[in-house]
Amino acid sequence: MNALPASVAVFGPGLMGGSLLAALRARSPRTKLGAWARKSQAIEELKARGLIDFGATDAADVAHQTELAVLCLPVDRMEEIAGAIKDALPPGSVVTDVGSVKKSIVDALERIFTGDTSFVGSHPMCGSEEAGLAAARPDLYENALCVVTPTAQSRGAALQVVESLWRTVGARTAVMSPDEHDRAAAFVSHLPHVVAALLVETLSRENPKFHDLCAGGFRDTTRIAAGSPELWTAILSSNREDVVATLDRFGAALAEVRAILNSGDKQAIHNFLEDAARHRAEIFPVT
Amino acid sequence: MNALPASVAVFGPGLMGGSLLAALRARSPRTKLGAWARKSQAIEELKARGLIDFGATDAADVAHQTELAVLCLPVDRMEEIAGAIKDALPPGSVVTDVGSVKKSIVDALERIFTGDTSFVGSHPMCGSEEAGLAAARPDLYENALCVVTPTAQSRGAALQVVESLWRTVGARTAVMSPDEHDRAAAFVSHLPHVVAALLVETLSRENPKFHDLCAGGFRDTTRIAAGSPELWTAILSSNREDVVATLDRFGAALAEVRAILNSGDKQAIHNFLEDAARHRAEIFPVT
Repeated sequence: MNALPASVAVFGPGLMGGSLLAALRARSPRTKLGAWARKSQAIEELKARGLIDFGATDAADVAHQTELAVLCLPVDRMEEIAGAIKDALPPGSVVTDVGSVKKSIVDALERIFTGDTSFVGSHPMCGSEEAGLAAARPDLYENALCVVTPTAQSRGAALQVVESLWRTVGARTAVMSPDEHDRAAAFVSHLPHVVAALLVETLSRENPKFHDLCAGGFRDTTRIAAGSPELWTAILSSNREDVVATLDRFGAALAEVRAILNSGDKQAIHNFLEDAARHRAEIFPVT
Repeated sequence: MNALPASVAVFGPGLMGGSLLAALRARSPRTKLGAWARKSQAIEELKARGLIDFGATDAADVAHQTELAVLCLPVDRMEEIAGAIKDALPPGSVVTDVGSVKKSIVDALERIFTGDTSFVGSHPMCGSEEAGLAAARPDLYENALCVVTPTAQSRGAALQVVESLWRTVGARTAVMSPDEHDRAAAFVSHLPHVVAALLVETLSRENPKFHDLCAGGFRDTTRIAAGSPELWTAILSSNREDVVATLDRFGAALAEVRAILNSGDKQAIHNFLEDAARHRAEIFPVT
């Protein structure tokens, strides 16, 4: 059973939102699609590309016509737009988001969407260092994992609608609590982002001349450090406690490995590297 | 002027050596190519693919016919093969290597190749987490940077031969001292390798269930952790002092960022992320 409502609107058509519209248009051609953006130029572009049926720069105008609202905004902008649409959404409508942190967003948005509207948080794990509508592509969600984070107060029907959305665009879904999501995201996403930035900064502070020697390994290891400083300041700040705890775990492991290397114990170095290579092959099997 | 000698042999035809043979065959068809490998199967395969004119599992046999010998071996195997070929090489021959560390190799090999043979170290910065002849490809060196590390006792003519080799296969060359190379390599290559392995291990120790959430960012950031534990144990051990010093710089930067994040100072977080994004764009300009 496809629980996708008749009309879906994206609030904030950047990489994630624009890709969602393109994927829905391709995979669910009878769904009415809408968008809200701060700038009319984005709405005009989406209309010109045939990706939306309705759109406006007034969030309430868009909300009036929306049964499923997807907030594709920076994590520190969710509340503002949620507040602007809550009284305009039709009764029974469902709201979700694509924020990279969940606890703070779910806490805030569950307080906003009460009564006739339901909120269930989402995090499709397929972001990129790219951003903006220009980077959007219809296959962004294909085979991606989307974590959906219902709470004790979530409605089953709303969860079903949100899972249906992500499956329609080709993603798999996993259900986690907001707490569990944020702790996991700190390890798989937030820590790597900080570490990638630290690799660049450690090198740059030492000797910018070393830049010339950077090849494929350094490029891939630091790719995500090219991500938007604005978006990532909001993400790291919103998940501060988990990120700091995760940095401490990483720092403890770093100290261990530093001691092993300094001791010259080749067997211990080999064991560490072999564990890491084996665990990585478990995460990303060679195909 | 092309200073490439009439015969070039690779000792150890894995990813680096096999790619070198394929590139030389394509770009310098009149050069006689040879190879030494521990297993006769590798020699047979190279002959069957038309990549070598002579080859054997006895290093001295190959050395007799070689004017330029390229040691494409793990960094802890260089001395053994260097010792096996030194008396067999014709007078005036030149030797180089492709090791990821230079101080220890150059020290050892300059003591071995004296008199009628000349050694100048090389490090083409285009390795990969892949290894072995099966991964070899003729374009591996195209547009790569190859660091060449002559010392006070190097002969100018030998340096010219080695630079000519790398330019023939499409690489750019840069001259650095072995010390300077190893310090730079610690920042651009050895530190990222340790950090990539640490990211995998920090995650795996915490909760292997989090593996399911790993997406593109984690994949790229940890790609090099899939590299051979044997090769990397030798590399990290050979450059122990520089690697430990570099880990300490990284650890100090980590502690700074941890403090910033913990304080919740968004402007400071933003400044750190913005510096990193800007410096990375300087290293890898968006094309």
